[in-house]
Amino acid sequence: MWGGRFAVGPAKIMEEINASIDFDRKLAAQDIAGSLAHVAMLAQQGVVEAADAEAIARGLNEVKGEIEAGTFTFSRALEDIHMNVESRLAEIVGPAAGRLHTARSRNDQVAVDFRLWVRDTIDALLLQVEGLQRALALRARDCAGMVMPGFTHLQSAQPVTFGHHLLAYVEMLGRDAGRFRDARVRLNECPLGAAALAGTSFPIDRAATATALGFDRPTANSLDSVADRDFALEALAAAAISATHLSRFAEEIVLWTTPQFGFVRLSDAFSTGSSIMPQKRNPDAAELVRGKTGRVVGALIGLLTVMKGLPLAYSKDMQEDKEGVFDALETLSLCLAAMTGMVEDLTPNPERMKAAAGSGYATATDLADWLVRTLKMPFREAHHVTGRIVALASERGAALESLTLADLQSVEKQITAEAFGVLGVERSVESRTSYGGTAPANVRAQAEAWLTRLGG
Amino acid sequence: MWGGRFAVGPAKIMEEINASIDFDRKLAAQDIAGSLAHVAMLAQQGVVEAADAEAIARGLNEVKGEIEAGTFTFSRALEDIHMNVESRLAEIVGPAAGRLHTARSRNDQVAVDFRLWVRDTIDALLLQVEGLQRALALRARDCAGMVMPGFTHLQSAQPVTFGHHLLAYVEMLGRDAGRFRDARVRLNECPLGAAALAGTSFPIDRAATATALGFDRPTANSLDSVADRDFALEALAAAAISATHLSRFAEEIVLWTTPQFGFVRLSDAFSTGSSIMPQKRNPDAAELVRGKTGRVVGALIGLLTVMKGLPLAYSKDMQEDKEGVFDALETLSLCLAAMTGMVEDLTPNPERMKAAAGSGYATATDLADWLVRTLKMPFREAHHVTGRIVALASERGAALESLTLADLQSVEKQITAEAFGVLGVERSVESRTSYGGTAPANVRAQAEAWLTRLGG
Amino acid sequence: MWGGRFAVGPAKIMEEINASIDFDRKLAAQDIAGSLAHVAMLAQQGVVEAADAEAIARGLNEVKGEIEAGTFTFSRALEDIHMNVESRLAEIVGPAAGRLHTARSRNDQVAVDFRLWVRDTIDALLLQVEGLQRALALRARDCAGMVMPGFTHLQSAQPVTFGHHLLAYVEMLGRDAGRFRDARVRLNECPLGAAALAGTSFPIDRAATATALGFDRPTANSLDSVADRDFALEALAAAAISATHLSRFAEEIVLWTTPQFGFVRLSDAFSTGSSIMPQKRNPDAAELVRGKTGRVVGALIGLLTVMKGLPLAYSKDMQEDKEGVFDALETLSLCLAAMTGMVEDLTPNPERMKAAAGSGYATATDLADWLVRTLKMPFREAHHVTGRIVALASERGAALESLTLADLQSVEKQITAEAFGVLGVERSVESRTSYGGTAPANVRAQAEAWLTRLGG
Amino acid sequence: MWGGRFAVGPAKIMEEINASIDFDRKLAAQDIAGSLAHVAMLAQQGVVEAADAEAIARGLNEVKGEIEAGTFTFSRALEDIHMNVESRLAEIVGPAAGRLHTARSRNDQVAVDFRLWVRDTIDALLLQVEGLQRALALRARDCAGMVMPGFTHLQSAQPVTFGHHLLAYVEMLGRDAGRFRDARVRLNECPLGAAALAGTSFPIDRAATATALGFDRPTANSLDSVADRDFALEALAAAAISATHLSRFAEEIVLWTTPQFGFVRLSDAFSTGSSIMPQKRNPDAAELVRGKTGRVVGALIGLLTVMKGLPLAYSKDMQEDKEGVFDALETLSLCLAAMTGMVEDLTPNPERMKAAAGSGYATATDLADWLVRTLKMPFREAHHVTGRIVALASERGAALESLTLADLQSVEKQITAEAFGVLGVERSVESRTSYGGTAPANVRAQAEAWLTRLGG
Repeated sequence: MWGGRFAVGPAKIMEEINASIDFDRKLAAQDIAGSLAHVAMLAQQGVVEAADAEAIARGLNEVKGEIEAGTFTFSRALEDIHMNVESRLAEIVGPAAGRLHTARSRNDQVAVDFRLWVRDTIDALLLQVEGLQRALALRARDCAGMVMPGFTHLQSAQPVTFGHHLLAYVEMLGRDAGRFRDARVRLNECPLGAAALAGTSFPIDRAATATALGFDRPTANSLDSVADRDFALEALAAAAISATHLSRFAEEIVLWTTPQFGFVRLSDAFSTGSSIMPQKRNPDAAELVRGKTGRVVGALIGLLTVMKGLPLAYSKDMQEDKEGVFDALETLSLCLAAMTGMVEDLTPNPERMKAAAGSGYATATDLADWLVRTLKMPFREAHHVTGRIVALASERGAALESLTLADLQSVEKQITAEAFGVLGVERSVESRTSYGGTAPANVRAQAEAWLTRLGG
Repeated sequence: MWGGRFAVGPAKIMEEINASIDFDRKLAAQDIAGSLAHVAMLAQQGVVEAADAEAIARGLNEVKGEIEAGTFTFSRALEDIHMNVESRLAEIVGPAAGRLHTARSRNDQVAVDFRLWVRDTIDALLLQVEGLQRALALRARDCAGMVMPGFTHLQSAQPVTFGHHLLAYVEMLGRDAGRFRDARVRLNECPLGAAALAGTSFPIDRAATATALGFDRPTANSLDSVADRDFALEALAAAAISATHLSRFAEEIVLWTTPQFGFVRLSDAFSTGSSIMPQKRNPDAAELVRGKTGRVVGALIGLLTVMKGLPLAYSKDMQEDKEGVFDALETLSLCLAAMTGMVEDLTPNPERMKAAAGSGYATATDLADWLVRTLKMPFREAHHVTGRIVALASERGAALESLTLADLQSVEKQITAEAFGVLGVERSVESRTSYGGTAPANVRAQAEAWLTRLGG
Repeated sequence: MWGGRFAVGPAKIMEEINASIDFDRKLAAQDIAGSLAHVAMLAQQGVVEAADAEAIARGLNEVKGEIEAGTFTFSRALEDIHMNVESRLAEIVGPAAGRLHTARSRNDQVAVDFRLWVRDTIDALLLQVEGLQRALALRARDCAGMVMPGFTHLQSAQPVTFGHHLLAYVEMLGRDAGRFRDARVRLNECPLGAAALAGTSFPIDRAATATALGFDRPTANSLDSVADRDFALEALAAAAISATHLSRFAEEIVLWTTPQFGFVRLSDAFSTGSSIMPQKRNPDAAELVRGKTGRVVGALIGLLTVMKGLPLAYSKDMQEDKEGVFDALETLSLCLAAMTGMVEDLTPNPERMKAAAGSGYATATDLADWLVRTLKMPFREAHHVTGRIVALASERGAALESLTLADLQSVEKQITAEAFGVLGVERSVESRTSYGGTAPANVRAQAEAWLTRLGG
Repeated sequence: MWGGRFAVGPAKIMEEINASIDFDRKLAAQDIAGSLAHVAMLAQQGVVEAADAEAIARGLNEVKGEIEAGTFTFSRALEDIHMNVESRLAEIVGPAAGRLHTARSRNDQVAVDFRLWVRDTIDALLLQVEGLQRALALRARDCAGMVMPGFTHLQSAQPVTFGHHLLAYVEMLGRDAGRFRDARVRLNECPLGAAALAGTSFPIDRAATATALGFDRPTANSLDSVADRDFALEALAAAAISATHLSRFAEEIVLWTTPQFGFVRLSDAFSTGSSIMPQKRNPDAAELVRGKTGRVVGALIGLLTVMKGLPLAYSKDMQEDKEGVFDALETLSLCLAAMTGMVEDLTPNPERMKAAAGSGYATATDLADWLVRTLKMPFREAHHVTGRIVALASERGAALESLTLADLQSVEKQITAEAFGVLGVERSVESRTSYGGTAPANVRAQAEAWLTRLGG
């Protein structure tokens, strides 16, 4: 394969560590698309004769057909997808196949293939992210007024609505989509024609191949074109942040489906049982979404470790770029699908949510705000007064609403009966009308706005 | 500090683990800017009376002055920068200070402060990235035709020029800048007014505070506003990729300054000696730039680990967001400065570079391309023929140019004397005129284009 | 400092990136201890005259006193702790100070200093780990029979006891201690005398300095002695695993202190409040312990990144070894202390635990096991039968115990009234007498065994 | 599969995310071994009748045979290896198969299987580590006196020998082996019998199954038994450190095989060529060993991320433990094999090494030491004097040996002609006789000692 300089073939362990065909066969479609664009351009520029180019194109399409049909035999001895395809092409079209690799190298070839794969995958992920956003926004619209406890430190903080809570994830996913879109813009330059690292002396037209493959332009520096894996790192970073978002939602589903919380229920279709405990209904999918964050983060760290300290241009270490990216992006896709399924599947329990929202003195802030608004008390003082009232209620094991006016006045004598009006959870959420606040009308409007934006 | 509910103060170890003032004091300027915008808005909206607002603003500026002058006493018992500032404000302006915290919480307050810090730091980093690009592009313009070996696998591959090599880093840094700019756009929404997590019932104007603090708009969901640290994660991811780029250049400087390579020399100002070996001249700064990648990657992984699986909204774990971000972005700043210094300081050795470029049969591809172009040989066959010629030269320990025509013809009889014309390294680089290729004219044009774009 | 070869001092940015005194001053005690051992050995071997050695020792002790007293002036221009100490020594004892650095280099010197610090810190951590184990085992003994739900997938699985649950952490911490002890054994070899990297021609006695500093033996290869940081990596790995254990317990404390679980309560001393919500009692210390896992993992990854691909022997990148190790081990120490405080502070709520243990059909496995034992049913069939009984109960919203015998027999007619005997949670835990099982007698015995082993 | 409680099967995406059979089939041998031990014990204890136990054992062996023969059909619907095996067992032996799962759960079953796999793999890795040590020590013995430059900061520091350099890796690998051995000791406790999490009421004999499976003892706490993955984390940490060691050696092979260094040559069997550049001979295996560090580190970080913050006992997240461990340990095995191959394959070039050792003033320390020894000069002063002599030589572009005595005396007039005697590289390495130093006799003795220890 490497021409005439080598007298002896590779050691067995060398072949084993070196071959990438077991995983880079995933790039077959991209590899052939790249070759088709390349040979068409070579013919256009007169570097290869039209007849040869046609034969090569015909042959490549035949190889493509074989791979799609599952009849193609991949060979480890041929090392990678590029040589597997080219070798089969030579069987089909004869010596003309040898003209395909003019003015390119596997270094720019793999850079093109991998960029195309990442780009295609980002496009598919963007659709999935929007699908999950839509599922969440639909739920949010329906549950815009469904009161639940808002937590900080996993302690009841202030009442919010379930719809509001779900919309928080729509926002996060919106940023995830933004990161993937930005990554796509940045990666969409075509390295083909950088050849090994220095460019080529053949009169190629890099703009033509870039356009044919849907890139915005060719890359501007041939060394950089074959030496850099920013597009992979950036996609992994975006995936790691998105997986972290999903892990947070997954944690909440795990919490919410406990008997202790009981805020939502997953159907049998999204629950699993136990081989020993007959009563079990486990939220396995949520746990797996949470756990799979690990492999996505691991893939990111893995590739950063690979690239650290590598001199230019291409080094073989960079062959380690693919498996982690394949696994991480496919994992994210799986997690998005599972999460979308769960969002559509889950049944909220408004009674449990509302009861929980009302416990734990969650409307104490409303009382403090009432003191500020009505009595013109500085907030710090109002906070202190309310704290003492909560302590009083807590000693008695009572809710705030069940204290008497006299109780309240024993702490602060200016309090009037009007104050009781702010202690209900529904009143509390309705009052949070500041932009982005949890008031049901706000939540409904935000959900509608997202649905419009998402075209759902 | 937490009002009336607590009967007993914190345990000593509790205070120790909880206090953040040792590091979040770095946010003092941002904290005060946020408070000034907040109180101005409260007054505008009639939530706080004008006189109180004025007193508070005056007091805040006094606190700011004390901090800048170094006369401010930070207290661990007051836990964080917010309470340190507010407590001192109360000493200065009395009970009116208690009105500042109306309609906000430390949750949205710290989110604003930290976003402002990250935004300011990104702005500063962008200037530094451009500074390094400019230094590189200037060098690249001067060295557009300086021939050196282009490496793949750290083996001589094809001749390139030193300018071309440096421009590869200009491209990488350009993408780094793009990532930071995108991150800045995405973070530039103001969480102030999200309050604890649910929004507020006070008639605040979030658009006003957003504008006053230079944000593009307020955030759209109050839970998300206090629960998310995307802006920190994204800045860390961009920093990790950029640090990885710098580590590659640093590795090259370490290689190039060895006696074995000898491609460049750093002056005494960028070299260090040894406590035991009197002859040593070590490229410490380059090694440190390379090594410091570790802490940047570590900070990214650290924060991803923190955020993984956290239920909404704010949890105290998130206090762990700051130190890593401070350290990572300041480390990147230090590395950019050191790298800019080295680029300006280094003296290339064109003779060593050119000699190295000419060894190792680096123009074998040129010969293969000649066979394709002139003899219409398929590239694969040309590659094989050239490989046999290289093997012949290698057996004799000779350069390609020193073979005779008869030698060449012993492998392929159609070769003519014209073939010798493509074996020189200067001819080789001049021939690489494809877009992005290493031809000196290309390199010069790219360097000029960058300098124009960078305004240098 | 580097002798006569340098004509020009370092650039400002060079000094800034290069100086380590800001953090390696933490090694002052170890540095001086190493120098004292070194100079005593040099005198013993006749390399330095007795009078000079005495002067140096006296001077070093004086420096030590100044550092302890806080009167020592650290200088950035002197770069690191070694040169700071030696420079002051020269002021105190004159030219004789110049004899101290005979037959050593900063490369072996810092390796000794850092090993000593890690060793000392491991010793302190081991005491803390044992302290936390003791606190847990004491609690476990007291709560050996306190029934709580055992969870898998955070769903009620089978009843266990609170003591049993706590002992799980005693086991984990026992392995943590084992890892630290093994790391200590492996690190306890003395690199002093490796000099720069090659050893020395002076007739030094490495065994003597090793013994004087409490090492088991000198290291066996001088290149390895200055090039490796295994001891730091291994300590970080042990710390990362231990921090992960603590994060799990911390998560549980966060869960258990929610109103939804209510299994334990932390006192005011281990709770914090909110600046806006007067009712809040947050388990901040537990959240911080959970979150601080991030920085420990980050430090491990940071140092692995630093060391990856570094050629032998010492490279300046390795100066990046210290800050992460300092921070990670001190963080673990803080977390162990906070966790010990929480274990001692928390008040369990046996009623809430027992009630939770009894809900969710947690004794279904006991019923299945009864079917196996009494009716000789294969377990798989018993599991299926019990599942149908649970489904029946679940449809009615009833507990298993509240079904009638007729109900049970409607699923499996061989069931007798005896079966009701296995449905109680206390009976359930008592029955789990297999080794390591949750039967209270088991738990008590294990707790006692640990307390004996721990000397508590 | 989960008995009678479930009315509806899993959603398609649920099955897809949940099934582990695609990777946990690797545990088939361990799973069957565990079941054989379990059923033998159940029969011994009278929990299962002898005839059933025999049938089950016979059936399990049949299943084992089918799997080994490749005729077994794995089913995704059966989720994992445990249910695949048990389901096939039921086909073979009928209802008796249902008795196998008595007194155990998949939670303890998978913990046993996975521990056995990790233990087996550690044993195999230990042999490989020793194999690489042996290959290195043999080379080291042969090259004990082969002079090469010792580097710090990749600058010539002092001459060492090639054997000495190789022995540094023998030391590192020795610690790697120690870490794996310690991990093996710690993991060698048997979780079987912990059942789901609480132990069991069946009268099982955990010591018997532990012994049958080669464990030292049963685990002591049933919750910990199913909840912890320390053994996996510790194995990954040991692998990550070892991979980092290999990455350093790999970097050196990459450096040494450049034309610039030329210290060693790899044969064709360990070199690869280029698809475009006919002259290339690339050290791909070394680059891949270096790069594969990334995936090992990624796997470690991945599992730490998974385990962070998981409440007890088993959560489904933990299913994510296997793929990373499989991949990381198999990667390390591949890297050890490739590295052993390269060590055996490489041909050192003593002339290039010695020439390099003699350049760069690498014996300057010897001159400084001579000044100390002979003229009783304090080392600091000797260092300074030598530095000035180096500067003088450097200005002239001359080696130290080519200076005249008058030149030396122009810097320090006490220097005599004797000083020239210490400037040769062979003399230099011979003089480094301190324990662990690079003197050839030392190196030979260390190599022999290792070979004896390794039984080679």
